[in-house]
Amino acid sequence: MTASVAPDGKMVYRFEEGDASMADLLGGKGSNLCEMTRLGLPVPPGFVISTQVCRDYLSQRQALPDGLKESIEENIGLLEQSMGRGFGSTDDPLLVSVRSGASISMPGMMDTILNLGINDEIVKGLARKMGDDRPAYDAYRRFLQIYSDVVLDANAGAFEEILARHKERAGVSMDYELNAEQLRGVISEFKDTVLRATGSQVPDDPWQQLMAAVEAVFRSWNTPRAVFYRDLNHISHDIGTAVTIMPMVFGNLGPTSGSGVLFTRDPSTGVNQLFGEFLSNAQGEDVVAGVRTPQRLSSLSEVAPQAAKELFDLSRELESHYRDVQDVEFTIENGRLFILQTRSAKRTPLAAVKTAVDMANEGMISREEALLRVDPEEIVQLLVPQFRTDMTSEEVQDTLIARGAGASPGGATGHVYLDADGAVAAAARGVAVILVRPETKPDDIHGIAAAVGVLTARGGVTSHAAVVTRGLGKPCIVGCDAFTVDMEQRFLAVDGRTIKEGEEISIDGTTGDVYYGRLETIRPKLEDLVEANTLLGWADQARKLGVMANADTAADAVQALSMGAEGIGLCRTEHMFLDSERLPAVRRILLNAEAYHAWSRNAAQSDEPGKAADPPAAVAEFSDALDQVRQLQTQDFLEILRVMGRRPVIIRLLDAPLHEFLPNYETLLVELTELRAKGVDADELQDKEEFLRLVDSLREANPMLGHRGCRLGLSFPAIYRMQVEAIITASAELLRQGLEVQPEIMIPLTAHVREMQRLREDLAGVAARVQKELGVDVPYKFGTMIETPRAALTAGDIALESEFFSFGTNDLTQMAYGFSRDDAEGKFLRSYIQEGILPADPFETIDIDGVGALVRMAVEAGRQARPGLEMGICGEHGGDPASISFFHQVGLDYVSCSPYRVPVARLAAAQAALNSSEG
Amino acid sequence: MTASVAPDGKMVYRFEEGDASMADLLGGKGSNLCEMTRLGLPVPPGFVISTQVCRDYLSQRQALPDGLKESIEENIGLLEQSMGRGFGSTDDPLLVSVRSGASISMPGMMDTILNLGINDEIVKGLARKMGDDRPAYDAYRRFLQIYSDVVLDANAGAFEEILARHKERAGVSMDYELNAEQLRGVISEFKDTVLRATGSQVPDDPWQQLMAAVEAVFRSWNTPRAVFYRDLNHISHDIGTAVTIMPMVFGNLGPTSGSGVLFTRDPSTGVNQLFGEFLSNAQGEDVVAGVRTPQRLSSLSEVAPQAAKELFDLSRELESHYRDVQDVEFTIENGRLFILQTRSAKRTPLAAVKTAVDMANEGMISREEALLRVDPEEIVQLLVPQFRTDMTSEEVQDTLIARGAGASPGGATGHVYLDADGAVAAAARGVAVILVRPETKPDDIHGIAAAVGVLTARGGVTSHAAVVTRGLGKPCIVGCDAFTVDMEQRFLAVDGRTIKEGEEISIDGTTGDVYYGRLETIRPKLEDLVEANTLLGWADQARKLGVMANADTAADAVQALSMGAEGIGLCRTEHMFLDSERLPAVRRILLNAEAYHAWSRNAAQSDEPGKAADPPAAVAEFSDALDQVRQLQTQDFLEILRVMGRRPVIIRLLDAPLHEFLPNYETLLVELTELRAKGVDADELQDKEEFLRLVDSLREANPMLGHRGCRLGLSFPAIYRMQVEAIITASAELLRQGLEVQPEIMIPLTAHVREMQRLREDLAGVAARVQKELGVDVPYKFGTMIETPRAALTAGDIALESEFFSFGTNDLTQMAYGFSRDDAEGKFLRSYIQEGILPADPFETIDIDGVGALVRMAVEAGRQARPGLEMGICGEHGGDPASISFFHQVGLDYVSCSPYRVPVARLAAAQAALNSSEG
Repeated sequence: MTASVAPDGKMVYRFEEGDASMADLLGGKGSNLCEMTRLGLPVPPGFVISTQVCRDYLSQRQALPDGLKESIEENIGLLEQSMGRGFGSTDDPLLVSVRSGASISMPGMMDTILNLGINDEIVKGLARKMGDDRPAYDAYRRFLQIYSDVVLDANAGAFEEILARHKERAGVSMDYELNAEQLRGVISEFKDTVLRATGSQVPDDPWQQLMAAVEAVFRSWNTPRAVFYRDLNHISHDIGTAVTIMPMVFGNLGPTSGSGVLFTRDPSTGVNQLFGEFLSNAQGEDVVAGVRTPQRLSSLSEVAPQAAKELFDLSRELESHYRDVQDVEFTIENGRLFILQTRSAKRTPLAAVKTAVDMANEGMISREEALLRVDPEEIVQLLVPQFRTDMTSEEVQDTLIARGAGASPGGATGHVYLDADGAVAAAARGVAVILVRPETKPDDIHGIAAAVGVLTARGGVTSHAAVVTRGLGKPCIVGCDAFTVDMEQRFLAVDGRTIKEGEEISIDGTTGDVYYGRLETIRPKLEDLVEANTLLGWADQARKLGVMANADTAADAVQALSMGAEGIGLCRTEHMFLDSERLPAVRRILLNAEAYHAWSRNAAQSDEPGKAADPPAAVAEFSDALDQVRQLQTQDFLEILRVMGRRPVIIRLLDAPLHEFLPNYETLLVELTELRAKGVDADELQDKEEFLRLVDSLREANPMLGHRGCRLGLSFPAIYRMQVEAIITASAELLRQGLEVQPEIMIPLTAHVREMQRLREDLAGVAARVQKELGVDVPYKFGTMIETPRAALTAGDIALESEFFSFGTNDLTQMAYGFSRDDAEGKFLRSYIQEGILPADPFETIDIDGVGALVRMAVEAGRQARPGLEMGICGEHGGDPASISFFHQVGLDYVSCSPYRVPVARLAAAQAALNSSEG
Repeated sequence: MTASVAPDGKMVYRFEEGDASMADLLGGKGSNLCEMTRLGLPVPPGFVISTQVCRDYLSQRQALPDGLKESIEENIGLLEQSMGRGFGSTDDPLLVSVRSGASISMPGMMDTILNLGINDEIVKGLARKMGDDRPAYDAYRRFLQIYSDVVLDANAGAFEEILARHKERAGVSMDYELNAEQLRGVISEFKDTVLRATGSQVPDDPWQQLMAAVEAVFRSWNTPRAVFYRDLNHISHDIGTAVTIMPMVFGNLGPTSGSGVLFTRDPSTGVNQLFGEFLSNAQGEDVVAGVRTPQRLSSLSEVAPQAAKELFDLSRELESHYRDVQDVEFTIENGRLFILQTRSAKRTPLAAVKTAVDMANEGMISREEALLRVDPEEIVQLLVPQFRTDMTSEEVQDTLIARGAGASPGGATGHVYLDADGAVAAAARGVAVILVRPETKPDDIHGIAAAVGVLTARGGVTSHAAVVTRGLGKPCIVGCDAFTVDMEQRFLAVDGRTIKEGEEISIDGTTGDVYYGRLETIRPKLEDLVEANTLLGWADQARKLGVMANADTAADAVQALSMGAEGIGLCRTEHMFLDSERLPAVRRILLNAEAYHAWSRNAAQSDEPGKAADPPAAVAEFSDALDQVRQLQTQDFLEILRVMGRRPVIIRLLDAPLHEFLPNYETLLVELTELRAKGVDADELQDKEEFLRLVDSLREANPMLGHRGCRLGLSFPAIYRMQVEAIITASAELLRQGLEVQPEIMIPLTAHVREMQRLREDLAGVAARVQKELGVDVPYKFGTMIETPRAALTAGDIALESEFFSFGTNDLTQMAYGFSRDDAEGKFLRSYIQEGILPADPFETIDIDGVGALVRMAVEAGRQARPGLEMGICGEHGGDPASISFFHQVGLDYVSCSPYRVPVARLAAAQAALNSSEG
């Protein structure tokens, strides 16, 4: 519908000639003014110079095209007729505004010139028509100031200095308190300054003013701030700006004049009542600049009852016409209403949800439209603990101490603790803890679990810390490199200020801001959010994708259900292993695994099993620790499966590399080196040395690509067998209690179908044995993660051994790109994104061309090999709206994400379904 | 042509009924006997029980099928007629052999029974016919011994004991020295022992003997050694064995009898003359068992001139008929020649090449057949330094001290050095060095380059050490875990023996054997190998794939040319960086890179370049070191490009992660901890602490997936710019000298086309500037490695920015599988292959289903996007024949491999072309 080139070379459009669909050619502001003109609204007359002219101007060595001046002259003539005023007239002068406006809103980035068409003589005529010198000379002063800045490139600071000096001399503090005489002094000094600084004068000829202003607006497309803004917001540098020219109307002509801004509904709460502000006897600029405190909108009825009624009626009409909340700028000139701008109102997430649901209920929009109106990210913002939003800038100034990268949204206040154990101990005493660490390691998981928020000096937004905290729905800031953490003296330092362990700070994970001291927070509950619940209910009806949650504990599972999850798409068992109470037993398992399995392989191969050598001590150690963990895991699964009942629970067997569960090698090395240097007897160090060797033997050059996942399961079969025993035992117990369960056993990191074959054969045997022992039939499925490129490439083979696939797009992305997240974030990924080498962070939004191609191939081959193969995705992309749209297109059955992102996924899945059915 | 099931249920085939094409049904031995019978050769009459009968027998609860006995009886009847002897006759007895023989040779794995059809009475008749008791009773003794073992499952050891006791009593040392009387004593004791041990007797009835022997041969298909052998050689367990029954002929009937083995050409050298051994008055078993030292074949003419002439003529006929070197077993019974077996002769690589070329030149086979006759791996075995092969077992016993995994073939003798610097220093003094290390790190590259061989206690056959040594063509043994290396006391210990630094050892990289002291080696030159050169010349005409070499230095390049390389497919620049002289400058570059680039970015962004702050010291450090390395690199490229002339040289810009060039973090940490523990003043440690922090900041969790390759090139653009300057400068200099050059600049580790775009734009600018400065036009290409899965998946895009692709299948394999080679080898990859989870080591032979699919996709998309795109492969797979076959099929332009594997690749590429044109 939109055209960016007028085929007939038309450069200028009267408001009557355009409409809302022509934003590409006329800009958002221009096309909306056209639309309102067509609707018969009281818009001043005007015209728009198209974006094509801007593009031509910029590409053709900044020369205005032939015929443009004539078109403008013709249109100014029409304005003169319409307004009954003369451009350049000293009797009844027509002043105009020359406004920038691209098709995509770039607020404040380009230039706009007001009150144009004035000079020393004309100002006198204007004053006469206004019946007051002050507003006329104020308009002249404003024109000179902005024109000098924008067109002549004079130093804007100099004008502010002049103005300040004159106000001081006059003993006033506000610009509008200067009287006409004083303003004339300001004007005179302005002129002198411009001449001295630039060697030019502001031209007296209104036509000269006008053409120079048009060029200046075009040139302002390429101001550094505009270029930067477009880079930041991924707006093309090629679209250019339109220029809108319309008569100035004056809200400052006396008590029956005024200016204001109106929202058709409350943009903070979404409540359906007019909301706005108004200043009598003022220009619109004064309202939006915030230099005076405006009155409430209701006062308008007293000032100009007729205009007020007209405005309120029109605003309803505008909302109905645009079918969205409108943000309307208006001016009343001597009791006559002018609408100067209308646009969709920016609103809080709360307001976005409420207005969408309300409008659907009012019949203004369909439910489908309502679903498409709300950004899924807004849903999650309704749910994170939030600081009050009404802090003044002074309050902020006082307490803001640093800024990092917001990694998990929401606000949290707590006491600083510098290590995980300290955090756990403090939390056990009921203290709200902010865990502050130089970096975050898996070792700290208990500390993160105990804390209300996390702050790290190093690490990126997709580092482990960030992943975990997002999963937990806890605010987190990472990469706050202004901090130094002194672990010896137990404090953190920032900008010369030190904060001791135990002191209170607040972190805003949405903005990345760190505050000293306490800020209040609130965490809303989804069930309390009536409109959000309604909207998500509609989303559930519209979507095709199932939405599951990643949850490792019963508490997570409860949370997941409250968010509307239909099952657990990923229950990670390593978090169960990392629990601080269990870690000692887990370490005993891992340190003795090699010895145990070597012994058990020998025992199995021996011809005379009775005569096998007595097992070494390591075997007993291993078996004992394994029994201990088996019991704990059985309990874990009992609790989770009980919560989820008939809903599927996909349990991933142990995945992490072993050394993640072991003490840090370098810490041990330093300790041992110190003891040696102290001359401790070699005999006494023997145990420690042996332990160091053991830990060393489990280290890896590239743990991401090392001995983990099903490789571990195949090397040390006792571990997976133990986990399967625990799953089947827990399931059998619940079935015996008359409950339903639907466990699904998932093998991580498959690269070759034979890994699946071997494990399936072995583990199915274990499951069969346990069921037989317990006398209960457990319905379970067996499937795999697709997270290595090779698994995706050979998915047809793997499907023959799998009842379900779950795409692990985090690892798939790491391996497809050859990016280690831990390394990439800090070293090059951020600059890749900043410099546009990558369009987006592939760990946040799935890379459709590369990783997505693997997913697509695997889905097709998998389904062909096994019709009805259940397929979903459990990487972090499962909670990302853009990725969800892709997963819908590619035909997955479900997405799984952290519980707090389940509502996001529900809405995004609905939008994906609606968008694809539209196409 | 072969049929494994006879449609008419025929179970038994007379030799007249079969031919060489029926090996599946009649076994290799049986079908060759049929073939020879058809040719009219003097083969004893006989018949074959088909493999189908064996399969039926084994699958049907070990019952012989109905009708088999009757068929055997009928065929024995035919043998009786033909031989004029009676089976079971006491006058003129017919003895038979019952031999196993599958379609694929499994030498010695199954059972065979000789001299069957004998008992206490028959032996007397046999003795009469032979005119001598001794050979008759010896035949009876042999029969009893083998029958008891094979059919009755008696303990073979007991018989050996009896035989030994009797020989001792008789005062002789050899079996054949026992006289008839003594043999009768042995036989009597054999019988008693069998009865006591098994409760059964060897049946007297020849028919009973025969049917039991047939069953026993069938059962021997499943002896543990046969099963193991089939597993090892990937032979199906389902094919079964045939049974060949033929009359015994006796070479031991006096001076005009004898047995022997003949090769139609020398199997060691390939020289075209008959070669073999002969024993007069002996059975064939005695020759192959090696219990007596045979005479040379020439002596046969004296013993039986007529038979000798017949044999020599027939052997030529057999070679012509089979068109290959034959290994012929024969027996002469009273002057009459019998051929008992013929088969293709096993031969040394040298002989394999020579016979193939000779036969083609003789017109016996075509050149294409000659090319297909030689295993490409044999070519490389001709070229590695080799120990003499004639060591006695005593010599070996004395000096063999340990065994590891042979990682790079060939033999080397040298003096043990335990660290790289020591190795370099010693080599500089002209010492031949064996570098012995606990493990091998990239830091040791200079030591490896200086050594004649490498031995490590830890690491796998595809570890860095192995890759580098194979690339260098140096023998290497890894994973020799019997060693302890004591770096403090400077020795290595094995089995209680210590070898001090400087002592001499020898390593055999083919077998993995480590010897104490010096063994002589020789390294052949390709140009001296006339037949190999001829064969490779034919290969060059037949192949479609180009063959290039991976070479990093001018010396490598010379070597590559001598091996027939057509260019350099991979010139790695990190090896140039790791040179010990340059490492200090390289470290200065890397440690200051961040500071330099931060400064240079700020300087570039500054509005007033003139006013930029003075550069910090780090900038000067960086620039100075970079200049130094630029000059050295220019010199490197000059030398390599000069050697290669008009041939392409693909130079890969810096790829390795930075920390590979830096000192080991843990070594520094220990050093610092020790100094601290000694109470060294904190001030004095400041520099060391700072350095430790710097090294720490460059460490990575997963360096394989970290800040390397083009990521480094984009973060620190000065490094790639320096490299391109060096390449263009060197090329320009050579062009100015009137030489030709063809440099190609290769970007490593591309994952996204925009990486290529940015680098191309930047580096093309650098190249243009240098060309302009030097006033020389340099023809160069710009391309990339395809080594991340994402690059392969988006190859169509990347081709738009690349003039060539080089597949880096090492990294591609690592990322597709999610295997880190460094970790996988030691932890799980070996057991994956042993246990059949993976069919082969994917780092040795390309994984066609997974990694191969990526290559195929990229080739198709690349060529579609840019017709004529030059594509090759430079991973280790470039030298692997099975992989080369795939690369031919997929349509690559060339393979590139280490210089020593170039001849392998030339031949393998020819075979790939011949095989695919056949299909």
